[in-house]
Amino acid sequence: MSAKLIGACIFGQSGGPTSVINASAYGVIKTALESEAITKVYGAAHGIQGVLKDQLYVMDEEDPEELRYLLHTPSSELGSCRYKMADPDVDVTDYKRILEIFKKYNVRYFFYNGGNDSMDTCNKISRYMKSVNYDCHVMGVPKTIDNDLYGTDHCPGFGSAAKYIATSCMEINKDARVYDNKMIVIVEIMGRHAGWLAASAALATYFGSGPDLIYLPECDFDMDRFLADVDDLYRKEGKVFVAVSEGIHYADGSFVSEAKTSATDGFGHAQLGGLAGMLAEVVKEHTGAKVRGIELSLLQRCGAHLASETDIEEAFNAGKVAVENAVDGKSGYMVAFERENVDGRYHCEYTLLPLEKVANYEKKVPLEWINKNENGLTEDFIEYALPLIQGEPDLPKVNSLPRYAKLKKVLA
Amino acid sequence: MSAKLIGACIFGQSGGPTSVINASAYGVIKTALESEAITKVYGAAHGIQGVLKDQLYVMDEEDPEELRYLLHTPSSELGSCRYKMADPDVDVTDYKRILEIFKKYNVRYFFYNGGNDSMDTCNKISRYMKSVNYDCHVMGVPKTIDNDLYGTDHCPGFGSAAKYIATSCMEINKDARVYDNKMIVIVEIMGRHAGWLAASAALATYFGSGPDLIYLPECDFDMDRFLADVDDLYRKEGKVFVAVSEGIHYADGSFVSEAKTSATDGFGHAQLGGLAGMLAEVVKEHTGAKVRGIELSLLQRCGAHLASETDIEEAFNAGKVAVENAVDGKSGYMVAFERENVDGRYHCEYTLLPLEKVANYEKKVPLEWINKNENGLTEDFIEYALPLIQGEPDLPKVNSLPRYAKLKKVLA
Repeated sequence: MSAKLIGACIFGQSGGPTSVINASAYGVIKTALESEAITKVYGAAHGIQGVLKDQLYVMDEEDPEELRYLLHTPSSELGSCRYKMADPDVDVTDYKRILEIFKKYNVRYFFYNGGNDSMDTCNKISRYMKSVNYDCHVMGVPKTIDNDLYGTDHCPGFGSAAKYIATSCMEINKDARVYDNKMIVIVEIMGRHAGWLAASAALATYFGSGPDLIYLPECDFDMDRFLADVDDLYRKEGKVFVAVSEGIHYADGSFVSEAKTSATDGFGHAQLGGLAGMLAEVVKEHTGAKVRGIELSLLQRCGAHLASETDIEEAFNAGKVAVENAVDGKSGYMVAFERENVDGRYHCEYTLLPLEKVANYEKKVPLEWINKNENGLTEDFIEYALPLIQGEPDLPKVNSLPRYAKLKKVLA
Repeated sequence: MSAKLIGACIFGQSGGPTSVINASAYGVIKTALESEAITKVYGAAHGIQGVLKDQLYVMDEEDPEELRYLLHTPSSELGSCRYKMADPDVDVTDYKRILEIFKKYNVRYFFYNGGNDSMDTCNKISRYMKSVNYDCHVMGVPKTIDNDLYGTDHCPGFGSAAKYIATSCMEINKDARVYDNKMIVIVEIMGRHAGWLAASAALATYFGSGPDLIYLPECDFDMDRFLADVDDLYRKEGKVFVAVSEGIHYADGSFVSEAKTSATDGFGHAQLGGLAGMLAEVVKEHTGAKVRGIELSLLQRCGAHLASETDIEEAFNAGKVAVENAVDGKSGYMVAFERENVDGRYHCEYTLLPLEKVANYEKKVPLEWINKNENGLTEDFIEYALPLIQGEPDLPKVNSLPRYAKLKKVLA
């Protein structure tokens, strides 16, 4: 093996925030600061936008003790973006600019932390740098509460979101059944195309206090069948608790929430929302029941106070493994998770997956984990998800409220 | 003092659930089970409705270890109700029925756990029993996330809800500022007439990650001034985080959310909701900004995983003190909290307040704790609220999810 590549690194965060994306940041930054091959550690302000705008924070200037708080600070502390890179075969403007910045700071390592779209960005940068013979090791660090990245058993961020959703559903279920009256509750959970998050509500049901019915975007939604499901339970029990994925859609592919949709995000994805309220209206009209719609909204992706310690550890390790492998000469990969069973216990192995294999594929909940009525999950899903929510982090608090990282963010 | 009154007791839960109302239940039940004067401990199913319907659970049949889980089980485990008792001077039907049940089970102690309306119920029952010379000691145990009970420094349930709101606002604030774009977030918080809960969002701001603007029902809401406040910050900062109480109203008293109102609860209170979405629409139209409305909904009142240990302890003690005083011969009182400063530290003293003094009064946030622009809180509020959210409970969990009480609920 040739001598190690020596130079600076840039780390960037991209896409929707999670409870543990900063744990991956800490994994990358700490390992990079300790690496002899890496001369300087830059954090890009708002992901690739910070590279393009030459807005880089010098991580070497931060207090190492303060950086540790990143393990329990939700959202993307360096700032995130939803910036769609052009195809380098069509338009190289952005890539030339990135190369210019890489040369300016002698950047030889690039770590990008995000979901599907971010791995696409990462892959394009990797290909471009190769095409212009600029020696730079590029690694993707996975992140997405949506859990839809291809080629990895699960994604950092999912376990904590799943734990937030399961715990909140247990509490909502307790609350919704308190009066001696008839009542229907509809909870809307994130997940545009993959139903992993809404499926997590099944953990609450498994432990005796969760939704009666769960609808995922993996199956076509049929309003008549949905109303019949709800009506049936309502007549039998008087109380119905429904969880729906924001991405449920009719057989023709149109989102159930579509009537409420107006804006789109930077990638042309429709911005969904208002589904719970809309379904509540439909169900109220159909059953005459008192119906409450609840949207877990941003809370489910930033609820760091309910993070899974397993998720935090794996997110940290994903960042650490990315740096270690890049320094060892690897480039063009995303860190992936492989689930192993060691003496009957869950164990996570870290592997590398070529970026071009992962970019732009979406992994969905296997249809065989959805019950035959398409309104609930089987025990296979519980077995899959349960290990991912385990462990209680030792949250730093001041006055019984979260103590987040306070970075100096010194610009390069 | 005369010999102790010997007989059974009934405990009931009423009104909206909280994270700690079951801690009060445990305080009453445990103390009553251990009391020599109390021969049997009944829990009414769905509050006073369970008495009227002769649906009483025998608490003596429960496993004492299982009852302990009530300390961390949200919502009202015995079931709650919103049942308005008639004025006994006008219609004694319900009171006669209650007397019949009391006689049937030799009930000599009645403990009722709830907010304003429940203290009114409690007071009416106490007066009726006296008027018919039925010897029964009646005690109210306070409870309300709204924190609006008269004559008590604060109410069990408020501290935990405040902690949930403050923590969630800190997380939402982190999430809302992640992108390098302009963005307005509006969070709707419970509180029909008193703004204590929305005010709690100021704790998040005080610790560096909370709403920029907070609007309470204690002040008349002026839409033009509100839009000017938001617009001003939006132009300066690009990001605005607003918290509003569901009960904000115009100078004429009409609720801002009123257009969205249809149903009313059992007491004729308007059922509010949909305010965040409505204000988001108005702000979007006015500023052209991307605006997200978030309703904390039921989550804020049942978020036991974020309960304040101080709140749990005080809720337990409120129940305990109610039983101890009733056995000692007191009747017609509500347990109240007095704040003391012991060597510079917060301390809670338990006192008794005549029920007729507390029933149907609403305690609001003092106007001098609201800033002069009527869009934020002063440090006096922080000093008041901070001690109430302190302490991390040792939550029983199974598989990293809450383990709630599982009662047998054997009917008498």
